[in-house]
Amino acid sequence: MGVTGVKKPVRVHRAGRDTCLTCEIDVFVDLPSTQRGSHLSRNLEVIAEIVEQGVSEPIKGLEVLAADICRRLLDRHEYATYAEVHIKGDYFLERSLPTGRRSIESYKLIARATHKRGDGLMKMIGARVIGMTACPCAMETVDEIQGNTLKQEGCLPTISHNQRNVTTAMLEVPEQFEVEADDLIEIVEASFSSPTFEILKRKEEANVVITAHRNPKFVEDVVRDNLALILKRYPQLPDDTVVTVRSESEESIHKHNAMAERVTTLGELRSDLV
Amino acid sequence: MGVTGVKKPVRVHRAGRDTCLTCEIDVFVDLPSTQRGSHLSRNLEVIAEIVEQGVSEPIKGLEVLAADICRRLLDRHEYATYAEVHIKGDYFLERSLPTGRRSIESYKLIARATHKRGDGLMKMIGARVIGMTACPCAMETVDEIQGNTLKQEGCLPTISHNQRNVTTAMLEVPEQFEVEADDLIEIVEASFSSPTFEILKRKEEANVVITAHRNPKFVEDVVRDNLALILKRYPQLPDDTVVTVRSESEESIHKHNAMAERVTTLGELRSDLV
Amino acid sequence: MGVTGVKKPVRVHRAGRDTCLTCEIDVFVDLPSTQRGSHLSRNLEVIAEIVEQGVSEPIKGLEVLAADICRRLLDRHEYATYAEVHIKGDYFLERSLPTGRRSIESYKLIARATHKRGDGLMKMIGARVIGMTACPCAMETVDEIQGNTLKQEGCLPTISHNQRNVTTAMLEVPEQFEVEADDLIEIVEASFSSPTFEILKRKEEANVVITAHRNPKFVEDVVRDNLALILKRYPQLPDDTVVTVRSESEESIHKHNAMAERVTTLGELRSDLV
Amino acid sequence: MGVTGVKKPVRVHRAGRDTCLTCEIDVFVDLPSTQRGSHLSRNLEVIAEIVEQGVSEPIKGLEVLAADICRRLLDRHEYATYAEVHIKGDYFLERSLPTGRRSIESYKLIARATHKRGDGLMKMIGARVIGMTACPCAMETVDEIQGNTLKQEGCLPTISHNQRNVTTAMLEVPEQFEVEADDLIEIVEASFSSPTFEILKRKEEANVVITAHRNPKFVEDVVRDNLALILKRYPQLPDDTVVTVRSESEESIHKHNAMAERVTTLGELRSDLV
Repeated sequence: MGVTGVKKPVRVHRAGRDTCLTCEIDVFVDLPSTQRGSHLSRNLEVIAEIVEQGVSEPIKGLEVLAADICRRLLDRHEYATYAEVHIKGDYFLERSLPTGRRSIESYKLIARATHKRGDGLMKMIGARVIGMTACPCAMETVDEIQGNTLKQEGCLPTISHNQRNVTTAMLEVPEQFEVEADDLIEIVEASFSSPTFEILKRKEEANVVITAHRNPKFVEDVVRDNLALILKRYPQLPDDTVVTVRSESEESIHKHNAMAERVTTLGELRSDLV
Repeated sequence: MGVTGVKKPVRVHRAGRDTCLTCEIDVFVDLPSTQRGSHLSRNLEVIAEIVEQGVSEPIKGLEVLAADICRRLLDRHEYATYAEVHIKGDYFLERSLPTGRRSIESYKLIARATHKRGDGLMKMIGARVIGMTACPCAMETVDEIQGNTLKQEGCLPTISHNQRNVTTAMLEVPEQFEVEADDLIEIVEASFSSPTFEILKRKEEANVVITAHRNPKFVEDVVRDNLALILKRYPQLPDDTVVTVRSESEESIHKHNAMAERVTTLGELRSDLV
Repeated sequence: MGVTGVKKPVRVHRAGRDTCLTCEIDVFVDLPSTQRGSHLSRNLEVIAEIVEQGVSEPIKGLEVLAADICRRLLDRHEYATYAEVHIKGDYFLERSLPTGRRSIESYKLIARATHKRGDGLMKMIGARVIGMTACPCAMETVDEIQGNTLKQEGCLPTISHNQRNVTTAMLEVPEQFEVEADDLIEIVEASFSSPTFEILKRKEEANVVITAHRNPKFVEDVVRDNLALILKRYPQLPDDTVVTVRSESEESIHKHNAMAERVTTLGELRSDLV
Repeated sequence: MGVTGVKKPVRVHRAGRDTCLTCEIDVFVDLPSTQRGSHLSRNLEVIAEIVEQGVSEPIKGLEVLAADICRRLLDRHEYATYAEVHIKGDYFLERSLPTGRRSIESYKLIARATHKRGDGLMKMIGARVIGMTACPCAMETVDEIQGNTLKQEGCLPTISHNQRNVTTAMLEVPEQFEVEADDLIEIVEASFSSPTFEILKRKEEANVVITAHRNPKFVEDVVRDNLALILKRYPQLPDDTVVTVRSESEESIHKHNAMAERVTTLGELRSDLV
């Protein structure tokens, strides 16, 4: 049992920079069925108190806050054997366009902590990023239809459908390991057909379009390329690190979405390489 | 005051066909400030009863149901001077692809009725349709960048960004006039760069992509083309028919949407022509 | 990989009654990483086709439709080893109030099917139901504060906070077993402090309030009572039937929700009894 | 035409305090139908630039930011005659419970600016607040049913249904007038049956319940009491100040909501008094 949808402002102090995130927090503990009546209510009270304390001072990251709340929950509920905390927050980073101009882009950070009494605490760091995909298949079929199959060097790519894509990448590690969310965001952005920007001058817009079409991807490709970059970026993380990547394209030619997801471990990804 | 979010199944009997729509209904009446206490509650009860009666037998259209509920509200609340009813429902139509294959596509019907005691009852018929736009500007800029400005007849259009677009068209008329929602849906679909489909074989997919790029449109163009088709389709409707068209593109190159809207009258549209 | 958010009208023929549900369908298959390029697109095409065929004729229940789509997916994708289908639909039932009046109430049906090649097909039947909870703890504390602890027989219950509660119950069984969704809805409604109704006359309203306060429940109690009724209602289902019950109260005294969930098996519930 | 759903972090410097709000911004300008083609795209670019500049330095309030963006839009689009900006942001305030304990509560700020070339700029300041209502009618009917009509002084109020209520209050004034959003939030909170809190100890919870039941209100009453407090609080604002109050209760005994709304002016409210 727990509480869901607690909205709190969270101050994150990271890399010398102080940011303030609007977060939504869900908190759960397991309770033995022998605990009833007013005890239940007291639990809710304790949960609320701990969340309140947790958000009152600057923290290092949402996953650190999640871990902290999770640990205090087990300390205060001596009859609980398990606690779980989910935190989501709106996040912003300054990005450079190829032209050098800078733009503030929005992201969603996702953090979780789970703690089974006796076992160590696990934390999960994730990010949800909006980008763009262009479809390789439509491109190929348009070429076939047009008898357009012998392409010259340097010519423009063929038209295709392209669309907004939302991709989430998450890593779950034992508490002592650190994963920087900004790195994950960078990895996800590098896996799209092209990243997207809130503000584009005309030439920049054309370049985003060209980049995306030179780099056509199915949702399945976005997931695969994400995993490859994660594998390369985190040699220091243990084999049992759980890696989840989910990519969803809001298909421009359909009213529904296309989706691919893989849940795996770094160990499995490493052995795929051999 | 009123109630919002009442979910009801509504059976529509139209053109010999019986369909069942899942609808969400909002109902409002104005109340003089002298009415207080338990009367207020009785009003809610009456509203609920009337909605219940209204949905119990097959009706001709959501706007007819809205008008019916609206009229009964004023009959039963003798001290109210105004009533308003909104109904939204999921709707489906079979569509033909250029290849002749058929596909069931989803839409949202929107109906409203407003009744000011003394004046006649007004009803509004609308539809929200999902389609696709391809951007004319990025296409032009890509050509400029590539020195690609002399185009041959019959060659493929230049790449651009394209995306899901959601467009809503609504007509508000005195009760005696009839507007068929299926016509409005057809008009909106004809105003996109291309309509979209739930199921596309490879060649059909390529053809949707080609159609969209041969027909690039800003949201502003979608609105303008919608209005032109509405003007042509409804010569029998009066000058003071209120026409609202709103088009929103979920831009593939941005994290935000582009939007255009025009609220006008058939009379104004007709005089623009002269 | 798969598609999400496919909207279709589904005709369900059950107990001599023909209803039409607006459904949202998600479909997934696993693909070996060696499958790439245009094959991926063909998969999406096959998925769409199968969904289209599945919804074209009246079916016995959403879980039967889910099972059917699931099986066809594995038939058509010979290299896939796993398929999964989720369907959600708006649903309505006529309910009797204690006064005998009848009211049409809205529910959400949830169906899933999963099929691992070689293993049998599993189907899940669930329902999401809106009801009402009154808090036992606040009631107790109000009494303490007021020195109100010696209560007479037949007197009114003490005030408390009460609120809208949303509870979901789901059973997952091998394909050959049948679970009637209407039964599950009845079980969930019986587990609230009181069921709720779209239309209530004044006395009915007062009776719902009295019922809820004579029957105060935490979200944890709603889950427990649900499980007890499920245990009693399904002696014929196997021990490994997975039972999931989740209850969330939109607490009137807080801006956040209270939530309880238990995922267990009928076997475990049966052994708790001994 | 315009852009919708632009997410930006906005730093607000007010009353010596620096807060950072996650905001969603919509921006519109009217365009003559003679403006077409690449001009349209340039407009979008200008809109994006201005939003970017607007959010780069601490501002005094969301309505000041909205006004600023609005003015710059007309400066840069010499052919536009009208501009409109909407901003919504998550907001937090520390609140004191009657026991003296403090709790961080969440709100939504709503700001708008509209500028018709030639006329002055209008700005709107609003807040959406979550609270609680207890129903006066059910209370009365329960008493009638129980023959409970002669109440003693000091005894507990009768049970009723109570629920989460969401109320929005907005004031629209010419640019030179100032309205402090924190005041509006205070007014809305004072208009509920009781304000609500993220964290309540047992006695505090009981007191919130008692307060709400001693102060039962229909949505219509919440609106009326809001308007009365606004009238009293803003003697300095002009008669043509537009006041909008909307209150929606997520009725615990129904699956739908009850809603009341009034759009009026301070002048009209003042003349009601005479």
